[in-house]
Amino acid sequence: MKEAMTDFPDNGPACPISPSRKDTIQLAHGGGGKMTRQLIDEIFRPAFENSELETDHDGAILEFDQGSLAMTTDSYVVQPIIFPGGDIGSLAVYGTANDLAMCGARPLYLSAGFILEEGLPMATLQTVVNSMKEAARQAEVRIVTGDTKVVPKGKGDGIFINTAGVGRREHSFTIHPESVRSGDVVLLSGDVGRHGMAVMAAREGLGFENPIKSDCAPVSRLALKLLDAGIELHCMRDLTRGGLATALVEIAETADLSIRVDEKAIPVQESVQGACEILGFDPLYVANEGCFVAFVSEGDADNALAIMRDDPLGRQAGAIGRVERSPRKSVILTTRIGSTRLLDLLSGEQLPRIC
Amino acid sequence: MKEAMTDFPDNGPACPISPSRKDTIQLAHGGGGKMTRQLIDEIFRPAFENSELETDHDGAILEFDQGSLAMTTDSYVVQPIIFPGGDIGSLAVYGTANDLAMCGARPLYLSAGFILEEGLPMATLQTVVNSMKEAARQAEVRIVTGDTKVVPKGKGDGIFINTAGVGRREHSFTIHPESVRSGDVVLLSGDVGRHGMAVMAAREGLGFENPIKSDCAPVSRLALKLLDAGIELHCMRDLTRGGLATALVEIAETADLSIRVDEKAIPVQESVQGACEILGFDPLYVANEGCFVAFVSEGDADNALAIMRDDPLGRQAGAIGRVERSPRKSVILTTRIGSTRLLDLLSGEQLPRIC
Repeated sequence: MKEAMTDFPDNGPACPISPSRKDTIQLAHGGGGKMTRQLIDEIFRPAFENSELETDHDGAILEFDQGSLAMTTDSYVVQPIIFPGGDIGSLAVYGTANDLAMCGARPLYLSAGFILEEGLPMATLQTVVNSMKEAARQAEVRIVTGDTKVVPKGKGDGIFINTAGVGRREHSFTIHPESVRSGDVVLLSGDVGRHGMAVMAAREGLGFENPIKSDCAPVSRLALKLLDAGIELHCMRDLTRGGLATALVEIAETADLSIRVDEKAIPVQESVQGACEILGFDPLYVANEGCFVAFVSEGDADNALAIMRDDPLGRQAGAIGRVERSPRKSVILTTRIGSTRLLDLLSGEQLPRIC
Repeated sequence: MKEAMTDFPDNGPACPISPSRKDTIQLAHGGGGKMTRQLIDEIFRPAFENSELETDHDGAILEFDQGSLAMTTDSYVVQPIIFPGGDIGSLAVYGTANDLAMCGARPLYLSAGFILEEGLPMATLQTVVNSMKEAARQAEVRIVTGDTKVVPKGKGDGIFINTAGVGRREHSFTIHPESVRSGDVVLLSGDVGRHGMAVMAAREGLGFENPIKSDCAPVSRLALKLLDAGIELHCMRDLTRGGLATALVEIAETADLSIRVDEKAIPVQESVQGACEILGFDPLYVANEGCFVAFVSEGDADNALAIMRDDPLGRQAGAIGRVERSPRKSVILTTRIGSTRLLDLLSGEQLPRIC
């Protein structure tokens, strides 16, 4: 945030001129990078601090009767609402089901809250709702309660959807960045960057020869297969806002360890690589919606990979790196040409409104 | 909806002119009246139909391990964000906690999803978040997981908040409109119309001599006291969008019974009554955020009333009517002057964006 602020004076509260950029919400506060982190650390965490609040992970694990319940939420504001490979409806169902699975929980129930803009074509809403129905079937979750609000034209943007999800934890592992250990192998379930570039290309009307399709999918299925097989998972994370790089940096920081990854082992579709080069993006930072990393001990890695590759959603799964003791809180990439590069959180908004 | 549509041709999908009002979302689809009902019946219910989906009640009761879990969600789009007696933050916490209690569940955990508009003053967000913290303390719920999205200026309206809530059902009653029986007494916890008129007056900048304060409060507390005392509750409903009249009509329709209520027994603050008269609203249809109805058998009514009146939030509680066999699916009001009036759902949007 510091960088972005250099040009702007810090106006104290007594100064009656228009607020500086530092005093207002910027697009980058929603980008999943440094400014999102800062917003969480400065505003949300101090207010909501409690033993269950989980700001370093995709959801919270909660006591419920004798059992253990996972809860998560995401709002979806993707633009365009419909894009190659999915739409805001499938995204809202898969995204939240995937987040539950990343906490090691079986997704059970979803709520759906709609904020519709006046004038939205009813046919668009119908398409999105049908897509949610099919996605819920695929992800084996039930949409059990909902709410609809309508805002005047110009006060929203077509459809925003919030889904919250409840799942059941059926094992005794603590799946969390803090459980990551030195020596763990980093598994990646598939190729990266497809969702972000599919949405970007659709939004900008870019006519690539082979249109890029979002990878939007219920990878919860894959994660549950690993759990059901008794793989001792230390941490899982789906690679949404901020992509693979951001997920790894956040995990390295929370785990207080180092992660070394090999760029050659990270699959990127040719069309995605091409679009990234044309548009100036780094595929490692581009969002996915059907792709995750899993941290497992070396002894479990081969078994876990075999399970992942056995599922169509995990065909390209591979080991991309390893956890080491030092340098702490850092992610080091060995590039295709053999040099090393330190990965960090992005300062600004890379791709706005991709989920 | 039929009435509102009479002037507009029904353009089939092949007709390439701009969509008619029937084919697009209107503000009234979010008003809690007939058009909201139609949207649910025509779009949401067919897609999400499953044994748990609950469209006639404030939340869903779900199996979880051996226990029984309640889940609910609401998005909040109130304008202005801060109003006399509360703000969008306290509303988002109390509203969802209250909905859980209306299902007969003890509120435990909330998720919070923020959709922020670029340029929102950070101080406003801080105020709202602090207010959520205090409201969570009052309602005895914990905010355990969250999400923040930012949309560009002009694509949102300051702050939208979604809260989803999870609660535990600790009793064996089926608290639902279908459990209402002929002979049940209708209890009302407090005076009606305050929240809607407080927001309306703030939005329109109306300078009433005594500014109306919203009744925004954790009435979940009151509902739980009734449950803890073993009162056999047949149905509860908080009187949000559409107010007391809409809640009663919906319950009468689902229960397939008649509800007779006495206008003289329904408390309305003098300032609220005055504002309603000036602005042309009927307080029976104006939203509340700290007020609910409870349906109990005659034998339990006095005991229930005593418990409610013993709590500051229920000081004005009273019996306002009774359930009868016929005429089915109808609500009959005995007015102050002794005549009778049939209450129905409103066709359009009465007060937009009051929650």
